[in-house]
Amino acid sequence: MSSAATRPAGPDDLWSVDEHLDDILATVRPLEPIELQLLDAQGCVLVENVTVPVSLPPFDNSSMDGYAVRVADVAGASEEFPAALEVVGDVAAGAADPVRVGPGQAARIMTGAPLPPGAETVVPVEWTDGGLGEGPASGMRARSLAPEGAEGQVHVYRPAEARAHVRAEGSDVRAGELALEAGTVLGAPQIALLAAIGRGTVRVRPRPRVVVLSTGSELVQPGEQLAPGQIYDSNSFALTAAARDAGAIAYRVGAVADDAETLRTTIEDQLIRADLMVTTGGVSVGAYDVVKEALSSVGDEDEAGGGVEFRRLAMQPGKPQGFGTIGPDHTPLLALPGNPVSSYVSFELFVRPAIRALMGLTGLHRPRTRATLKADAALRSPRGRRQFLRGRYADGEVTPVGGAGSHLIAALAKADALIVVPEDTESVEPGGEVEVVLLG
Amino acid sequence: MSSAATRPAGPDDLWSVDEHLDDILATVRPLEPIELQLLDAQGCVLVENVTVPVSLPPFDNSSMDGYAVRVADVAGASEEFPAALEVVGDVAAGAADPVRVGPGQAARIMTGAPLPPGAETVVPVEWTDGGLGEGPASGMRARSLAPEGAEGQVHVYRPAEARAHVRAEGSDVRAGELALEAGTVLGAPQIALLAAIGRGTVRVRPRPRVVVLSTGSELVQPGEQLAPGQIYDSNSFALTAAARDAGAIAYRVGAVADDAETLRTTIEDQLIRADLMVTTGGVSVGAYDVVKEALSSVGDEDEAGGGVEFRRLAMQPGKPQGFGTIGPDHTPLLALPGNPVSSYVSFELFVRPAIRALMGLTGLHRPRTRATLKADAALRSPRGRRQFLRGRYADGEVTPVGGAGSHLIAALAKADALIVVPEDTESVEPGGEVEVVLLG
Repeated sequence: MSSAATRPAGPDDLWSVDEHLDDILATVRPLEPIELQLLDAQGCVLVENVTVPVSLPPFDNSSMDGYAVRVADVAGASEEFPAALEVVGDVAAGAADPVRVGPGQAARIMTGAPLPPGAETVVPVEWTDGGLGEGPASGMRARSLAPEGAEGQVHVYRPAEARAHVRAEGSDVRAGELALEAGTVLGAPQIALLAAIGRGTVRVRPRPRVVVLSTGSELVQPGEQLAPGQIYDSNSFALTAAARDAGAIAYRVGAVADDAETLRTTIEDQLIRADLMVTTGGVSVGAYDVVKEALSSVGDEDEAGGGVEFRRLAMQPGKPQGFGTIGPDHTPLLALPGNPVSSYVSFELFVRPAIRALMGLTGLHRPRTRATLKADAALRSPRGRRQFLRGRYADGEVTPVGGAGSHLIAALAKADALIVVPEDTESVEPGGEVEVVLLG
Repeated sequence: MSSAATRPAGPDDLWSVDEHLDDILATVRPLEPIELQLLDAQGCVLVENVTVPVSLPPFDNSSMDGYAVRVADVAGASEEFPAALEVVGDVAAGAADPVRVGPGQAARIMTGAPLPPGAETVVPVEWTDGGLGEGPASGMRARSLAPEGAEGQVHVYRPAEARAHVRAEGSDVRAGELALEAGTVLGAPQIALLAAIGRGTVRVRPRPRVVVLSTGSELVQPGEQLAPGQIYDSNSFALTAAARDAGAIAYRVGAVADDAETLRTTIEDQLIRADLMVTTGGVSVGAYDVVKEALSSVGDEDEAGGGVEFRRLAMQPGKPQGFGTIGPDHTPLLALPGNPVSSYVSFELFVRPAIRALMGLTGLHRPRTRATLKADAALRSPRGRRQFLRGRYADGEVTPVGGAGSHLIAALAKADALIVVPEDTESVEPGGEVEVVLLG
């Protein structure tokens, strides 16, 4: 149950944007962790401290293609007086049982291959004749083309210190060290490290499954023909895309007609695949506001803790909002207003943080910055409402796009920022400073 | 064929990072456009100018829940002297054939519903008694609970100007206007607009399919047991994740043993689902560098324009690189070095821009910035090499993480930036300025 007791007392009182968000974030808990294959865990939050089971590299290995030799055998070598060594074999990467290098001997060695027993250092192939007897080599010929390279003689033209061109066992990480801390978000480099230390699966919070449905008998699927009085359903598309963008696995159910019973059964039906449910429309004061009507009795009414509460927020657009939990699992549900711009702004302010909280992320919010208002006229905003205007941000300046009308979806598509006008501000002059939410 | 003629002449000459990248970007062409369902087009680049087929809103509609009335009927209305009007019916959103409002009449109207014929303005329900005769109403009761609200009498307490609370047809966008320009990247707000104007599908460049495979007989799948001389395959995981992050649909083929014939057949087999192929390992000068060996003869050798060229770049890490096209469709292939850090840095510098070029994006590169070096000692870099060190960036400062060793994958997992040390710089003192690539 939302903690309504500590909130605005009467049904006519307005909730602030922050009170509504706080209520949502106090209710939404991170999802239970699950063991996932590495690539399924991309973008997820690790819930375990991962320690290194085996040092990296796991054995001394060559950082160059060349020859593994003893230091004394190449001491003083030069182009004029090269060291001539007997090649006793190849050491390829992955070699389980490399040859032994004795005095006066060398083993041809590839990058990443284990330093063979007896060898003390590696001379790069460019410091040798590559076994061809034709002066400094620029590289090695492929083994399949030149199997004879693994025997015969090699001339080395430069000396090498002990353990030159050798990557020491454990020089990257040592067994027992902390590889990644719980709370780390798994991007490509973190997945690289987990794979490198041998972890095939990892324990993370999964991506939340978000079910999106819009309501309204006037809504028609894009691509179909409009009859008089009808409009196209855009919210279910926009919010499904926005939910994915926030990190969720999103399911678009589409538009449901304004009938409380249909809506109730649809929501109950979808609960099985929802970690979070988002509806749009039907939350206002109108006589056809079926979301309000339907959600008063979704799920098992005997369950404790259920219930969706409808509120009016001191906010523009997005004044009417619903929030609560439904069904036996207390699945959180956000009921957003039906107007496309209102629903999108509401998504950014309330649903996106809820999705990221479900993922266990700590950075729940879009970045914000201060910007100078670049406009021909002052921005007007009603007292007592926090207004979110659409704008374009660049180089510390923000320019409003379109007007305040919450139906200006064409302007929204050109915006990359929301301009925040606080409750106690009724006007912002051009050149004034405003807070800006960067939609990224 | 890569334009090698204008590049370094001899096989021993180094290519610069920029020459190699230019060669890749001159070869990689944006993918052919395809008509996709809206939600499948998320993140893709639009290739058509989309015009508005029908104005938004498509008809005058109410922005409030209230009553549609004639202006003269509510002129001078007040709480003391309310206007009493006959309620002739409901106008719900989606209503095809609304009631007609005559003199002395009102129609209950919902947000988004068409302004009915005869009506000139809308009074919000809060300015009326909601038809209940009990003073100002705070909202409407659901129609199913109060069907009688659609008849009887309503008292209106305030006057309204003509077209108050009415959203005019076409006030958002007008039919024939440009909704979205070719080249627009489709995020949630753009998908909202496309849906709102009735577009169910849209013509975009698809996400490229990227096949990732690593090579090396020493590679073992994470989760398995390591034998002596073996290491875990991390590159195929890391680069698959990185390719997805760049916008691609990525397929991880996994590790292929160091056998040219096996590698050749694997690559030929995978070509069918590849718009871009990425290999790691086997590109150096070693005798087991099978990628180099195998790719000299992949696909149909009679085809013009095929072939992968192997180069040495004036770069650290990531010196050995291969690039070219293979197979009948001239599928671009990038052969990256096998070391995990080298391959990841190479991915960021070369593969990511190639993926974004295939998508038709214009912003190919990670953002870069200047930063102050925060370090205990000077950074050293070999003359003539552009060095990319791993670092953490914050507030205009960058701190190196780990050393220059290209095997320091643990450090990579802590980095969020690459520190660029140019070819002509051998040392950067603490407090000096460096260029930084933000890995985001």
